[in-house]
Amino acid sequence: MRILGIDPGTRITGYGCVDVTPGSLDPRLVEAGVFKLDTKAALPKRLAQLHGDLVGVIKELKPTRLAVEKLYAHYAHPRTAIVMAHARGVILLAAAAHNLELENLPSTEVKKALTGNGHASKQQMQLAVQSQFNLPQPPSPPDVADAIAIATCHARRLAARQM
Amino acid sequence: MRILGIDPGTRITGYGCVDVTPGSLDPRLVEAGVFKLDTKAALPKRLAQLHGDLVGVIKELKPTRLAVEKLYAHYAHPRTAIVMAHARGVILLAAAAHNLELENLPSTEVKKALTGNGHASKQQMQLAVQSQFNLPQPPSPPDVADAIAIATCHARRLAARQM
Repeated sequence: MRILGIDPGTRITGYGCVDVTPGSLDPRLVEAGVFKLDTKAALPKRLAQLHGDLVGVIKELKPTRLAVEKLYAHYAHPRTAIVMAHARGVILLAAAAHNLELENLPSTEVKKALTGNGHASKQQMQLAVQSQFNLPQPPSPPDVADAIAIATCHARRLAARQM
Repeated sequence: MRILGIDPGTRITGYGCVDVTPGSLDPRLVEAGVFKLDTKAALPKRLAQLHGDLVGVIKELKPTRLAVEKLYAHYAHPRTAIVMAHARGVILLAAAAHNLELENLPSTEVKKALTGNGHASKQQMQLAVQSQFNLPQPPSPPDVADAIAIATCHARRLAARQM
């Protein structure tokens, strides 16, 4: 089972793809990266860019599931949440169009699964993802680490269910 | 010039299409209606349905511009605003993919343009749209009237600029 984790943003969207490994709670890292969007472009154009990039990755990596963080209404920055929800809408559309099962994960659970702390900092998440997959460096920018973490958290849950 | 006004929602999305009439501030109503989404379906599926319906209308009516209401962060119901922003993201994506110019209009301006009152009720908007286009009945549900009103407000502004 292959999972694509997405950390949505309208400037940088991170993605991380992992395979659930039979008989193990630890998934295998397939690929990760970011979509950098043209911040000078208007929102519709940026959304089209994000959609195109994401569909490209879906076609290349052929995941069967897509994992994103849950969005909450009580954000400290409601404007950011609303702009991010535009990006999230486009991501969910791509998931539906490619028949990917969608999983919404609470941010605190993702952080807790990787670091043991539901309120871990971005840097702690980068170090935890580096350690989990024995990477030579922490994944950067933090958006990549977050996307890998989301996919990893979902993969572990699925693996645990199968055991 | 043909304008498609959209009133986004994840249950009902209204659309209204008008033509700017040369030499007049009053546009001509081309077509209007709603996309009713399957409220029992999960959000990705509803977004895919909305996207498919909207692309169908864009291909049929061939508008050159798309008008939506501006979204604000200070909503009384932030959860609704965030869910609506998902739908709006999909709508903006369709606009970009079909090279439609996007216009964001403040809700109060749309209401004021049609009724003279920036805080008009849904019913007042329905009656104003009925009167504007000499319709036999008020457009229903209110989402259709709102979509026609958004397109009309944008058409009038464009017509005024050309005079």
